[in-house]
Amino acid sequence: MRAGKYLLGLWILAVLGSSLMSGSVSAKEYFTVKNNVLERPTGYREWVYVGTPLTPNDMNNGKANFQEFHTVYIDPESWEHWKKTGNVRDGAILIKEMTSVGSKVATSGKGYFMGDFIGLEATIKSKREFPDEPGNWGYFSFTNEDHKSIKKAAKLEPTANCNGCHQASAQDDFVFTQYYPVLRAGKSSPEKAVGGK
Amino acid sequence: MRAGKYLLGLWILAVLGSSLMSGSVSAKEYFTVKNNVLERPTGYREWVYVGTPLTPNDMNNGKANFQEFHTVYIDPESWEHWKKTGNVRDGAILIKEMTSVGSKVATSGKGYFMGDFIGLEATIKSKREFPDEPGNWGYFSFTNEDHKSIKKAAKLEPTANCNGCHQASAQDDFVFTQYYPVLRAGKSSPEKAVGGK
Repeated sequence: MRAGKYLLGLWILAVLGSSLMSGSVSAKEYFTVKNNVLERPTGYREWVYVGTPLTPNDMNNGKANFQEFHTVYIDPESWEHWKKTGNVRDGAILIKEMTSVGSKVATSGKGYFMGDFIGLEATIKSKREFPDEPGNWGYFSFTNEDHKSIKKAAKLEPTANCNGCHQASAQDDFVFTQYYPVLRAGKSSPEKAVGGK
Repeated sequence: MRAGKYLLGLWILAVLGSSLMSGSVSAKEYFTVKNNVLERPTGYREWVYVGTPLTPNDMNNGKANFQEFHTVYIDPESWEHWKKTGNVRDGAILIKEMTSVGSKVATSGKGYFMGDFIGLEATIKSKREFPDEPGNWGYFSFTNEDHKSIKKAAKLEPTANCNGCHQASAQDDFVFTQYYPVLRAGKSSPEKAVGGK
């Protein structure tokens, strides 16, 4: 009887341990979606930064499709998963915060320098929320036309608006990792993920 | 006697509480400096991102002084301090990780898109380590000439190399916050610091 209890205890520990190691116990989500409407996320500036594509207006006939600096973040749990497995987990959210070009010259040289925040977009991978979207990815834009305020909630974009380009041209599971050196370095490589190597 | 002990207990709790709230108990440093030599930091890609100035080679006669994207991070404790006080704490470290321009066209438009990591620089504010430097700021570069590898340790740069420009042109205590929208938004504003407002 005593040996039985001891073995039961060991078994519980083993199950708990393997769940913790696989991360399945703490599959936290960093978004709130209801009926395909996403509440505007907060806190993402304290997530993990992955890269900054830049499409300035002055290189795109005065008006870029995505204005202008695109700062991209991934939620912390998906980053941990990416470092370990090299895959984007179900439940991942990536944020694209848009910033204007503030100036084109600084003491460091000529170039492009960030101005103000002018928009916010998000993409989420979720089988539960987007069972019929390609790759289970849903896309959302909180950007207003005036580029001065952002919406409190956003409706799922029609599939054709975003998923076409992501499916055709993104390098890794609908994510443009070809432009995100932090994700490229960290793919299945916890030791290279954190820099300084 | 009993009332005396009670009051003493209350006083200790009050002192502990205010220390914890001001953050003075946990003044963790994110760097190791010995005799003006800084060990190459790691882990900074999981710190807080503040902005990405870009000085492309093709806009600077083929060779920018700082090549090319400059991704800037601040250590987490200094970020917490900045959000609360609007000041850079003594003991702060900022990292500038350099990335090449990988391409100039993508499905999102014409522009500048990140390639590979090609350099690493750091600046530290420390009265203890740099009592004679302007503002107590020390500057370090781990970048090698080949832009393919980085040094394991770096010597303090001569004051004239970096501090001149930072002192003359940086907006906030030798930090170029005019190009770092995350720092500007978060200055003394915990609620605006995290985005989505």
